[in-house]
Amino acid sequence: MTRTRLRDLGITIGNLPTGQYNAITDVPGVQVGQITIIADEPCCARTGVTVIVPRAGDIWFDHAFAGFFNFNGCGEMTGQPWIAESGVIHTPIAITNTNSVGAVRDAIAAYPLERSNQLDIAPSISASWQGSLPVVAETWDGWLNDIGAFHVTKEHVFEALAQAQSGPVAEGNVGGGTGMICHEFKGGIGTSSRLVRCQGEQYTVGVLVQTNYGDRRLLRVDGVPVGREIGYDSVDHPWEKPPKGGSIIVIIATDAPMLPMQCERLAKRATIGLARVGGMGNNGSGDIFLAFSTGNHLPIQSQHKLDVQMIPNDHCDLFFEATAEATEEAILNALTAAETMTGWQDHTAYALPLDTLQQIMSKYRL
Amino acid sequence: MTRTRLRDLGITIGNLPTGQYNAITDVPGVQVGQITIIADEPCCARTGVTVIVPRAGDIWFDHAFAGFFNFNGCGEMTGQPWIAESGVIHTPIAITNTNSVGAVRDAIAAYPLERSNQLDIAPSISASWQGSLPVVAETWDGWLNDIGAFHVTKEHVFEALAQAQSGPVAEGNVGGGTGMICHEFKGGIGTSSRLVRCQGEQYTVGVLVQTNYGDRRLLRVDGVPVGREIGYDSVDHPWEKPPKGGSIIVIIATDAPMLPMQCERLAKRATIGLARVGGMGNNGSGDIFLAFSTGNHLPIQSQHKLDVQMIPNDHCDLFFEATAEATEEAILNALTAAETMTGWQDHTAYALPLDTLQQIMSKYRL
Amino acid sequence: MTRTRLRDLGITIGNLPTGQYNAITDVPGVQVGQITIIADEPCCARTGVTVIVPRAGDIWFDHAFAGFFNFNGCGEMTGQPWIAESGVIHTPIAITNTNSVGAVRDAIAAYPLERSNQLDIAPSISASWQGSLPVVAETWDGWLNDIGAFHVTKEHVFEALAQAQSGPVAEGNVGGGTGMICHEFKGGIGTSSRLVRCQGEQYTVGVLVQTNYGDRRLLRVDGVPVGREIGYDSVDHPWEKPPKGGSIIVIIATDAPMLPMQCERLAKRATIGLARVGGMGNNGSGDIFLAFSTGNHLPIQSQHKLDVQMIPNDHCDLFFEATAEATEEAILNALTAAETMTGWQDHTAYALPLDTLQQIMSKYRL
Amino acid sequence: MTRTRLRDLGITIGNLPTGQYNAITDVPGVQVGQITIIADEPCCARTGVTVIVPRAGDIWFDHAFAGFFNFNGCGEMTGQPWIAESGVIHTPIAITNTNSVGAVRDAIAAYPLERSNQLDIAPSISASWQGSLPVVAETWDGWLNDIGAFHVTKEHVFEALAQAQSGPVAEGNVGGGTGMICHEFKGGIGTSSRLVRCQGEQYTVGVLVQTNYGDRRLLRVDGVPVGREIGYDSVDHPWEKPPKGGSIIVIIATDAPMLPMQCERLAKRATIGLARVGGMGNNGSGDIFLAFSTGNHLPIQSQHKLDVQMIPNDHCDLFFEATAEATEEAILNALTAAETMTGWQDHTAYALPLDTLQQIMSKYRL
Repeated sequence: MTRTRLRDLGITIGNLPTGQYNAITDVPGVQVGQITIIADEPCCARTGVTVIVPRAGDIWFDHAFAGFFNFNGCGEMTGQPWIAESGVIHTPIAITNTNSVGAVRDAIAAYPLERSNQLDIAPSISASWQGSLPVVAETWDGWLNDIGAFHVTKEHVFEALAQAQSGPVAEGNVGGGTGMICHEFKGGIGTSSRLVRCQGEQYTVGVLVQTNYGDRRLLRVDGVPVGREIGYDSVDHPWEKPPKGGSIIVIIATDAPMLPMQCERLAKRATIGLARVGGMGNNGSGDIFLAFSTGNHLPIQSQHKLDVQMIPNDHCDLFFEATAEATEEAILNALTAAETMTGWQDHTAYALPLDTLQQIMSKYRL
Repeated sequence: MTRTRLRDLGITIGNLPTGQYNAITDVPGVQVGQITIIADEPCCARTGVTVIVPRAGDIWFDHAFAGFFNFNGCGEMTGQPWIAESGVIHTPIAITNTNSVGAVRDAIAAYPLERSNQLDIAPSISASWQGSLPVVAETWDGWLNDIGAFHVTKEHVFEALAQAQSGPVAEGNVGGGTGMICHEFKGGIGTSSRLVRCQGEQYTVGVLVQTNYGDRRLLRVDGVPVGREIGYDSVDHPWEKPPKGGSIIVIIATDAPMLPMQCERLAKRATIGLARVGGMGNNGSGDIFLAFSTGNHLPIQSQHKLDVQMIPNDHCDLFFEATAEATEEAILNALTAAETMTGWQDHTAYALPLDTLQQIMSKYRL
Repeated sequence: MTRTRLRDLGITIGNLPTGQYNAITDVPGVQVGQITIIADEPCCARTGVTVIVPRAGDIWFDHAFAGFFNFNGCGEMTGQPWIAESGVIHTPIAITNTNSVGAVRDAIAAYPLERSNQLDIAPSISASWQGSLPVVAETWDGWLNDIGAFHVTKEHVFEALAQAQSGPVAEGNVGGGTGMICHEFKGGIGTSSRLVRCQGEQYTVGVLVQTNYGDRRLLRVDGVPVGREIGYDSVDHPWEKPPKGGSIIVIIATDAPMLPMQCERLAKRATIGLARVGGMGNNGSGDIFLAFSTGNHLPIQSQHKLDVQMIPNDHCDLFFEATAEATEEAILNALTAAETMTGWQDHTAYALPLDTLQQIMSKYRL
Repeated sequence: MTRTRLRDLGITIGNLPTGQYNAITDVPGVQVGQITIIADEPCCARTGVTVIVPRAGDIWFDHAFAGFFNFNGCGEMTGQPWIAESGVIHTPIAITNTNSVGAVRDAIAAYPLERSNQLDIAPSISASWQGSLPVVAETWDGWLNDIGAFHVTKEHVFEALAQAQSGPVAEGNVGGGTGMICHEFKGGIGTSSRLVRCQGEQYTVGVLVQTNYGDRRLLRVDGVPVGREIGYDSVDHPWEKPPKGGSIIVIIATDAPMLPMQCERLAKRATIGLARVGGMGNNGSGDIFLAFSTGNHLPIQSQHKLDVQMIPNDHCDLFFEATAEATEEAILNALTAAETMTGWQDHTAYALPLDTLQQIMSKYRL
């Protein structure tokens, strides 16, 4: 059966409407670029990098409020001390495999230094890029990918940044998600979005996930115990003895004007979506969530007080629901999109069988 | 239909076995005392206080490691700065209504001062009780209770402490949960427990909740959208315009030796259980979770290094599942136990209809 | 020698100018009210309560951004979960003794309920006061005060709130600071302020402290090791065996528009001032700091996005210095103002000898 | 005047005795390795990397409890989410320049993969090294170093790890500190240690700093306003317009058995030492502190509960003082050791003049 998106299977999560592409790119200005690295020689590569670029690249001089939440911190997201202190991100965000965090981080730091001459920017601004603190997160793909080979290079990152665009986002075995495994099925990249009406205005909440966590027996789709139903009889599972760990990175974007603490509140709500699919925050899992808001402009230099806006706290509930719903659906999109993959040491991770999924959903939903 | 516990309706949550009473008191030494205050004159009272007493009261001189997590902090739990710094609790824990936090807190501080002469304790130890930092949390019962009347007194707290005992725990409209509302049905106190085998030994995780949060449309029971199915047609709901806020306090106890950071990890997993029932961490909600471990003894004074034990981090996953399952079931027990209540200004909160619940569960589960 | 303020002794801290009163009340709208409770019958009372009222009382319906930092959390400040989540305070702030935190907290919660009929406020607003989450902090005065007698009542708090005013602030043995001890000399309440010019505008940073911490040997005044010089020979010290603990509460106010995370940054800088005087964050010490900003108006209800302003992060350094300087000077003002006091069990805490202080300062400063 | 250590100038900080080398290496098993990169062709290099190796390298399979504190988070220290969650470090620690964090991080992750065949380690253990989360921190040396050239390579890191040893530690313009500037004088690496007697046993607290922060006017040595006295008249300063930012990394080691939360408490006390020298936590500064304890053994795999020990909380005060003193002295050692350096774009950072320092100290101390 052709891989597809959850909604194309007739399964809907939650109540809020989606944006045009049901993707993080529905948030105006948010772009995604992905480089997928698949090779068998000289060593096995099943990995890549996914970048999320806010403000169509202007993020380098027009920062964005941000906040994060580590539901379980056994993973890495660089830049957290800076975000906690300053309340902003000032670079694109990248997701890759565990061992490539450094290469990707330094590549993002190098990007404006090597590319700034293309921009008509005041020297005082470009000087600030001599010490960037990029945000790079990871999950571990060492079951399918020879992670000790350190495949991802600066060139891959530059190419991902150059390719970043709006519109539909590839899901499943792409970018940083190429070699990932989720609920013991093939996982990877997934995305979803929700529209929120608040005080007379419409906003978008978009989510992108890199999924690499979880037990099959806990997998639920809209509350239905799909993983328990599938079990291990009819569908092969990837391992005799599962590797420890696994992780999920969730990136949340919104054009609603949210202060840093409000971004952190959004980030926390990714936990709701994760829990509803069957996430448990296992010990070795890096369940790390970041939210940013493009709803305020924060120029890198200002001679005056900054005027910013905020959604009143007591109007945030729909944004919380939007985040939870979009996270839940983005995870499931990763599962329905990802294809069976064989990789390092002939390990195979099997795709979630879509026909079985539909049968189970019918059985429970009549 | 008589109010009952979830399992008596044939509904089971999760996979792990429960303890003897399926209650927080299954953790050895953990006692619960509850005072329920219901009156119509001179003013309407639908409130009370619930105390959780670790170590059968020895907590005053044999502290316990603890950690907390505020999924949404729009509520109060006193003692958090102390717990974060010292990693321990040194008093019983209490839950009451929002406006009684102070009275209950000072009462717990007064308790050892007024009762210490009954104990054969060295003066150097009892001196330490001149400045206790008790843990008191709250949810808001101002829909059914005249909360501005400040009903709870020191005497109520002393009585709850004196009555605290092991064994079965009353649920629903009792203690601090007397006037609470959950998913727009009558809520209150609930409890549950799970047994965990780890490295050849058996431990217990027990949970007690005071539930006062949530939208009806989001209520799920073992994944089934019960709240959406019930809707508002057949069953009255408590308000024209629901009050903002609502909260849930979750207290988690275990006899497994957990360090403070590990207690915090347990506390975080209450989020999983809450999310599975339909919690969203609404803006005004104080979703505040505390976990403590009685698995190490921490005498108030020691002349030597303390010897303590810890479950290795990579053996914690079953404890996480136990916490999630017991939290989910404790919330549902509060709903199935609580009875319809009419209170302040003739407001009525209706009990979750158990026959309807069973019909819906049958429909979805075949 | 008459007790006085540090500057009246010719000793200046730091470089920035002070406000008119060199007090927290130099921040427009900030008022202070203090009730001092001194009695010997029926039991020894050396305690009280100090309230800081932002916005001349409008704080109840026009909230203020706030943030806190616990340098050492072995103390209590209620309301922290709410501040961390919402980023605001919505009540006056109070400081008292350890055992009176609850009474003071509930009193503040009761205040608008009992006094709201005097105000011309919409019912929808006053309804929100049915569940306030007041900010009350403490230090332990059990050496001079019979702290087990729970002296502070609701009436004391109401009186402090009613008396709160702008202008000069009494220091030393007043309000919550009445029975406090600092660096083994008599401590108590102190205050100071600094003016900051930023981007063409002038702002004020005001600090109020309740000091009850520290070793004599570590006391420094503008870097001079005054405590070591005084020692224990010429000046009596209060104890054979000092009580464990001791704490310091620092409240920082500013009219500069600061977001919650920026208030937290200010709060952290109180650590600088404390360290320069000789604070170490001893184990049992509650070194708890809160900053709030009146520079933005945050109405309790809003039908639109809120427009707020913020000082750009890279213009915050002078505010950090102002906080450090004012904290340092406020602590020293508490020491120079406080008078020798005899209290519970005939304990005596001796005032810092001002002539000796001046001699030492001259010796070191030529 | 020959560069030297502070104590060789007759200046002593604090009261506690130092260890044998007055260095972080006084903590048994702690090793330091430093690679200094100085070149003018093909581009200007004034940078390097410093590694701190706990347990003489056994840290890879015998983890150590750890905790951190970001006094001001505008910098980077990778591994923080993992440390906060697991409470341990499982790799050596490295400090370098801002743009080399990634290269150094990935190098540490690669180290056990490429060198594990030298070790007689069970495959199940070495498998865990397929996804390390190394701790790498940075300060910004872009004034003296062409930071955009990304000088530090994997080979530098491997060499630093191979060279790591006990005994005296080079200070000043070495390793990661090569191009750093502190209080507008030449800064770099500094170290110091203190001995603590506690409950009949002797422990060591060692500190290593990489200093790159601060205003000259705020520099104090043992309380004496040395920076203000020196001013800008007699001694050149490095810039017309100082670069924003500057940072300080503090690494604290102890053999006292401290739990993770206690390590965090130690880390916080570095703030005291920093404040006493004149640190303010300026906006752009990454003031990031990490403490680890080798006093407990935490094998990477355990079939049983772990037995660990802890210093009782109420015996921690001397460890706090030791951390504060050693941090203060380590910063000053960096200043007295570092030599005048000319680097990128002919920028020069001048050494703190030692004769002037001694004259000022004499003037103030008689």
